[in-house]
Amino acid sequence: MFTLHPQLKKDGIAVGDLSLCRVLLINDRQYPWFVLVPMCDGISEIIDLTGAQQQLLWQESARFSQLLKSVYRPDKLNVAALGNMVPQLHIHHVVRFTDDVAWPAPIWGRFPLIPYDEQQIAAIKAQILPLL
Amino acid sequence: MFTLHPQLKKDGIAVGDLSLCRVLLINDRQYPWFVLVPMCDGISEIIDLTGAQQQLLWQESARFSQLLKSVYRPDKLNVAALGNMVPQLHIHHVVRFTDDVAWPAPIWGRFPLIPYDEQQIAAIKAQILPLL
Repeated sequence: MFTLHPQLKKDGIAVGDLSLCRVLLINDRQYPWFVLVPMCDGISEIIDLTGAQQQLLWQESARFSQLLKSVYRPDKLNVAALGNMVPQLHIHHVVRFTDDVAWPAPIWGRFPLIPYDEQQIAAIKAQILPLL
Repeated sequence: MFTLHPQLKKDGIAVGDLSLCRVLLINDRQYPWFVLVPMCDGISEIIDLTGAQQQLLWQESARFSQLLKSVYRPDKLNVAALGNMVPQLHIHHVVRFTDDVAWPAPIWGRFPLIPYDEQQIAAIKAQILPLL
């Protein structure tokens, strides 16, 4: 059974499930920041997935990136598998703007998360969910 | 014709070419840090590549990650397409250890690069090239 890492559970808001990945919105209003978590237990690296799973991961990542591009019109997308703090494989998809608070630095560990309010979360879900 | 961005040319040492990507070693002895640059001009985002190119990119990334795993025995691999500073699409592959200078933070913008000496570069090339 798939269990989400406690830190991802704490920081993330479940938006929906694709075939392989759970989509989480990171609860930080400073950037549209999503994470794709392959729903497999005990996987830390992309190359720990089977070849077929890797192919599906990148298909879902590309589809989700297109969605982010159409919804947010970003200046740049940051797509990254780091996992230095949370060992469960998760792939960040961060919408970046040249006027966001961290630009051009990477966002991780830069500023404390600033949570959304309930209405903002509902609005983002309403925008993203039909396109997943 | 494919032209490498001046910043990648400055910081990177060409190791070899795969079918799609040029492999660069970033000239920073603080971490084994490589970059895969798809040899296509005018591409900033992964999703700007064709579907077939994306598939090839991730196959080359996986093969190169396996190589890094076998050569360095990392504690973690960081695989990331950021591109906030250098718009030419390039995918970082960074070998991380729990005792490296930046751990567990991401490495980008953390410390100034500390260049290798010529012998170290030759040794890395000799180790990596036959496995490419």
